[in-house]
Amino acid sequence: MKIVVWNENRHEKENEVVSSIYPEGIHGAIQGFLEKEGLDVSTATLDEPEHGLTEEVLNHTDVLVWWGHQAHDEVTEEVAERVKERVLEGMGLVVLHSAHFSKVFKKLMGTSCDLKWREADEKERLWVVNPTHPITEGIGEFIELEKEEMYGEHFDIPVPEELLFVSWFEGGEVFRSGATFQRGRGKIFYFRPGHETYPTYYHTDIQRVISNGIHWAAGLATPKPVYGNAQPLEPIAGKTAAGR
Amino acid sequence: MKIVVWNENRHEKENEVVSSIYPEGIHGAIQGFLEKEGLDVSTATLDEPEHGLTEEVLNHTDVLVWWGHQAHDEVTEEVAERVKERVLEGMGLVVLHSAHFSKVFKKLMGTSCDLKWREADEKERLWVVNPTHPITEGIGEFIELEKEEMYGEHFDIPVPEELLFVSWFEGGEVFRSGATFQRGRGKIFYFRPGHETYPTYYHTDIQRVISNGIHWAAGLATPKPVYGNAQPLEPIAGKTAAGR
Amino acid sequence: MKIVVWNENRHEKENEVVSSIYPEGIHGAIQGFLEKEGLDVSTATLDEPEHGLTEEVLNHTDVLVWWGHQAHDEVTEEVAERVKERVLEGMGLVVLHSAHFSKVFKKLMGTSCDLKWREADEKERLWVVNPTHPITEGIGEFIELEKEEMYGEHFDIPVPEELLFVSWFEGGEVFRSGATFQRGRGKIFYFRPGHETYPTYYHTDIQRVISNGIHWAAGLATPKPVYGNAQPLEPIAGKTAAGR
Amino acid sequence: MKIVVWNENRHEKENEVVSSIYPEGIHGAIQGFLEKEGLDVSTATLDEPEHGLTEEVLNHTDVLVWWGHQAHDEVTEEVAERVKERVLEGMGLVVLHSAHFSKVFKKLMGTSCDLKWREADEKERLWVVNPTHPITEGIGEFIELEKEEMYGEHFDIPVPEELLFVSWFEGGEVFRSGATFQRGRGKIFYFRPGHETYPTYYHTDIQRVISNGIHWAAGLATPKPVYGNAQPLEPIAGKTAAGR
Repeated sequence: MKIVVWNENRHEKENEVVSSIYPEGIHGAIQGFLEKEGLDVSTATLDEPEHGLTEEVLNHTDVLVWWGHQAHDEVTEEVAERVKERVLEGMGLVVLHSAHFSKVFKKLMGTSCDLKWREADEKERLWVVNPTHPITEGIGEFIELEKEEMYGEHFDIPVPEELLFVSWFEGGEVFRSGATFQRGRGKIFYFRPGHETYPTYYHTDIQRVISNGIHWAAGLATPKPVYGNAQPLEPIAGKTAAGR
Repeated sequence: MKIVVWNENRHEKENEVVSSIYPEGIHGAIQGFLEKEGLDVSTATLDEPEHGLTEEVLNHTDVLVWWGHQAHDEVTEEVAERVKERVLEGMGLVVLHSAHFSKVFKKLMGTSCDLKWREADEKERLWVVNPTHPITEGIGEFIELEKEEMYGEHFDIPVPEELLFVSWFEGGEVFRSGATFQRGRGKIFYFRPGHETYPTYYHTDIQRVISNGIHWAAGLATPKPVYGNAQPLEPIAGKTAAGR
Repeated sequence: MKIVVWNENRHEKENEVVSSIYPEGIHGAIQGFLEKEGLDVSTATLDEPEHGLTEEVLNHTDVLVWWGHQAHDEVTEEVAERVKERVLEGMGLVVLHSAHFSKVFKKLMGTSCDLKWREADEKERLWVVNPTHPITEGIGEFIELEKEEMYGEHFDIPVPEELLFVSWFEGGEVFRSGATFQRGRGKIFYFRPGHETYPTYYHTDIQRVISNGIHWAAGLATPKPVYGNAQPLEPIAGKTAAGR
Repeated sequence: MKIVVWNENRHEKENEVVSSIYPEGIHGAIQGFLEKEGLDVSTATLDEPEHGLTEEVLNHTDVLVWWGHQAHDEVTEEVAERVKERVLEGMGLVVLHSAHFSKVFKKLMGTSCDLKWREADEKERLWVVNPTHPITEGIGEFIELEKEEMYGEHFDIPVPEELLFVSWFEGGEVFRSGATFQRGRGKIFYFRPGHETYPTYYHTDIQRVISNGIHWAAGLATPKPVYGNAQPLEPIAGKTAAGR
């Protein structure tokens, strides 16, 4: 299984708080804990040619992890469409935190993906509402993060196919923090935590959920369905020569 | 409640079989049976300025019914985006037959919306799989259509929020023929039947389902959620002056 | 539409705090605000013969509202089964607060329906996560209750068909507070608030949600499906005289 | 992973057609192809003490496969409840064909689980409607069975959490043939095919689906949620000494 971690990688260059927490970048931190599991992980970032997501790279990617925030608009329409098409063909996609507003996620959801937010160093507690799912495997009743950005309802996404986590925030809001979707032959997992100014991706439960999500999202060995004009499988009484 | 029935209205101009079945156009036939119920219904077609879907028209439309087939690409990106945005704001959308491939439906679904098809004058039987839903109210166990175009699985849509009808086809396929989705504050109903060369829209059960779908899809008097930066509703111990 | 509000009606007799808040009983308070809307509402309680839920009564009930807590076990198996069967035949059911543990709800869910709870006069904020549903119509972004009993995840119910409200609690938990289910031809709405020691059922938003839920749950004019041995609708090549 | 295949094992004793197709019993045939995969599989049947499902056996079972038909009522209430409780605690359950009417499945679903049926040696074609699911992995667009019993809609089950297969029948019906449900911490897969008078369980695609279903349904290493009275995780302003 080949994994690519994509990161905008701008905050790390512009903000010392972020670069001190993530000296290798958020992508580097995620690559780090995934490689410790023995996974095959490479990275790609916004400022590389084609954002590091060439046809060649995507055609050999089983699961793509996406983190973006301030520069969603700098992702070219061409690359965003290319990634979307690969998801529809079966590439898994793990969408982290502010990537709820990425072009790729919005194209796949069909909604604004808008939400409430607040930066106030407040406590978040992610409650497991589905303890039977492989993505919550090994996690206790909740994950507690001392300081995170708040995301609050209403979260303008389609009704998730599976709701896995619901967050409680110190400031009074709740949020559907872990949700899955299918699009085409691709599986998508949205996971809320991971604001750039907090060491969230060093939290072992957060790492476990992201790793579980990658394994869940990986494509399966199922033949691609056939679309288009089809010959009948059974005799048709009234069959005519009608063509399209 | 204000309803607009949109139709591509090309087959009716180019094909005598179609114009003989639908002398007022498919839009005219649908408007006809809806008005018999006392509903306020107008129509719009592809060749009108802005396809008849100006900001003014859409801002006063509660439910839009959409039929298109051979000229999906002639619908301008601007109008397709405008309609999509209105759905996200709460306008109901009833998508008929080959409109599964319309720009508007594909943008809202995020998938290819592809399927199998065959024109062979074959029998279709739409089975009700959800007898508790307002859209199937008043319909018996199934609706039988002597001759229709076949649409077969796999139908490349997101998992429907509600599956209402499953079709049996004489030639050996099945199809998820009636399905609902939510996007933003808008409700969407996809209903399969209605190939232009058959008098499907004169079938009283088909009319009942479309009418039920319109009533189900109409927007509700619920305040629009507030998005963006939010003040805390509860005191936050560690609150800082951190801004974005 | 005929509505019956069922209440255990024991706390009201044994606890002065409860009887001072609900002098007519919880059932009386609910009947009161529903009748103000012009609805046809009667009540039934545990200590009546057959708990007030005779065949005669149930056969003429469109929607049953259920509140119970300390005496779930005193509801006879016969009446619990009778109510369950009526729901499967199309009677709507609105399940309030501690009725999550009622025999009827547990039989319909197939799970333990267990949860976390705490009585600490704490604040609850019910967030609307589905602003397109008729049950949330007219409600703002959330409903705030100054003091309520806490119910916390994990709530051991099947995955709801529709999730409408998620509660935030002052003490740190979240809860899926408004959820819908279908069983047979019946529609079920579970709504969390309403501990007996608080005046929750006098809150106008709570009243609106219960009223919306009753209208949503009311049965529809759809024929009952036919079950059992069926004759073929199409010729079968290999048909034999095989019997069961 | 420990698998137990339970079978009523009555048709095999009473009907020569069945015993000639399944000389080792349906349970033996299923055990046979599962063991070829190297799985640890034992069997249990109705006429064994406690139907072969003692506390001891169930406590060491990860996934239970269930086939029953003519003697559902002979399964004792005690054993049916015991199996149900084990599913709620996390044991996977694969429910085959006429076991839709088993006590265990009906208790877990909360509905009648009724359907249409016909024995006419007719063709069934199971179409994959979800090609992204591990249970459909490796299966093509459909599975064709030359002769099977027909099961037709309406199938009176709760809305499946995941719909995987839809069957087309020669006689004109459709059926939701593969569906998943969660109850408590247990995962349930219902799979339609397998009438006793046909060699369905020797079909390699049917074997693959049952095997996939078993792997999908196996319990995960997630801690059991804690239920009951809970201490607050956060300070509560209005906290009182109120007890229950």
